[in-house]
Amino acid sequence: DGTDLYCLPGVPGEMRAMLDEEVLPKILQRFPDPPERAEQTLTVFGLPEPEIEDRILRQGLPSGVELAFAVDLPTTRVKLRCCGPEASPQVDRAELKSRQALGDHVVAIGEETLAGNTIRLLILAGKTLAVAESCTGGLIAKMLTDQPGTSQILEQALVTYANSAKTDLLGVPAELIEQHGAVSSACARAMATGIRQIPGTDIGLAVTGIAGPNGGTTEKPVGTVYIALSSDNGERLERLSFPGDRDQVRIRTAFTAIDWLRRLALEQLTGSKD
Amino acid sequence: DGTDLYCLPGVPGEMRAMLDEEVLPKILQRFPDPPERAEQTLTVFGLPEPEIEDRILRQGLPSGVELAFAVDLPTTRVKLRCCGPEASPQVDRAELKSRQALGDHVVAIGEETLAGNTIRLLILAGKTLAVAESCTGGLIAKMLTDQPGTSQILEQALVTYANSAKTDLLGVPAELIEQHGAVSSACARAMATGIRQIPGTDIGLAVTGIAGPNGGTTEKPVGTVYIALSSDNGERLERLSFPGDRDQVRIRTAFTAIDWLRRLALEQLTGSKD
Repeated sequence: DGTDLYCLPGVPGEMRAMLDEEVLPKILQRFPDPPERAEQTLTVFGLPEPEIEDRILRQGLPSGVELAFAVDLPTTRVKLRCCGPEASPQVDRAELKSRQALGDHVVAIGEETLAGNTIRLLILAGKTLAVAESCTGGLIAKMLTDQPGTSQILEQALVTYANSAKTDLLGVPAELIEQHGAVSSACARAMATGIRQIPGTDIGLAVTGIAGPNGGTTEKPVGTVYIALSSDNGERLERLSFPGDRDQVRIRTAFTAIDWLRRLALEQLTGSKD
Repeated sequence: DGTDLYCLPGVPGEMRAMLDEEVLPKILQRFPDPPERAEQTLTVFGLPEPEIEDRILRQGLPSGVELAFAVDLPTTRVKLRCCGPEASPQVDRAELKSRQALGDHVVAIGEETLAGNTIRLLILAGKTLAVAESCTGGLIAKMLTDQPGTSQILEQALVTYANSAKTDLLGVPAELIEQHGAVSSACARAMATGIRQIPGTDIGLAVTGIAGPNGGTTEKPVGTVYIALSSDNGERLERLSFPGDRDQVRIRTAFTAIDWLRRLALEQLTGSKD
């Protein structure tokens, strides 16, 4: 009955190329005048999905704008979609209202990621960075260097997994580790101060924790993580407790640490303080 | 007509829990005597899928064993499945034949990953490791520390993104970088030697390259990567050229470097040399 049926391969790269080069041009030829469509995505961190929805609906969405969620743990991607003659301005209004509703939990807009936005803000703020990771084992550095511009601001990142690496490379006193343990606020603070001093960067970020499955104790169960940030703005230091398995603890730790960097860069740009 | 229909949520964790706790027990209750099934997975690196298939089919599979592929770039997961009274020994035979056909391109068996297998072999070989990453920006360290046992062997991993970090932390002479560039075999070799010497580990691994999208030249286009390995067995040093975008270049570099570690550990365990 004149219906076109397209079969595309499962490999994402091949599928996308065929869709762009073959399928979409043919569909556009058949329907040369498609209705206006607009979409915007907000990446949200630190709020559960029901609360995100609740906050946005309480703020009220412009008519015709649909709200959809895609969970990309530990973030939630909020999609605002509209179809019709006023699609674009309606989605713009919906974006503004959603950002008001969600405040600084919106960590990226559109295709950008938390790490990408963070790097962009740090470059804008003109701040250099050094990172020392224990439990995340390179994940923070990996996420930051996913962004092409990172070399402008990331001076060095050390995965100081062994205690000797914390002592030798970061100057964390062996007695401090003996007394408080490698997973402690004292160690996290010393790591952040140490990593900032070696190359002389504006910001030092350090994480140490127990990602599991082993190493947990009653006092410090699996999921216990300390994050420390050292900068001209002073120090920020927290003990956190993340649920989930090794992978999830590491991912949540990395996102939280990078979100701290994002907030610090915003403070530096806007001149506001914690 | 008595057919059970189960609707499960899309969030993988929730889906799996419901499947295990609710759905599977009910299905097993309805079909208390399912036919014997067996499956084995081989993770293959460094061979394209058509050649994998060709090699296995030339070797010949036991009757009743099905061959399936799941591409998990840059590796291919080969699945050997059988259903029936002799399922398990048939799959065992198929595994043996496939391993003969694919040789040391089989980088992991079953649920294990390339990085997991590599760490296990390094622990068995009793070898300690230090890593210096430039273009991969922490991805190698992240992949290695995905494995719980890594702290036994990974002394430290440095992301020496800036030239100053290569000089200050790894002792790469500034003149060497000036003369040959940071992406050069001379720099990769100096990084591997340097990272091995700081903590005094058995093995030093270093990568430097141009992941893109910027930084490529006619002589060294995007995708040019140098990997260097330094150990008691001597040095291994190669210039490689990877296709794809930034992400793909980084992933292929990391897999290749970790595969070098796996082969080195195997050599140390079996006493054979390159």
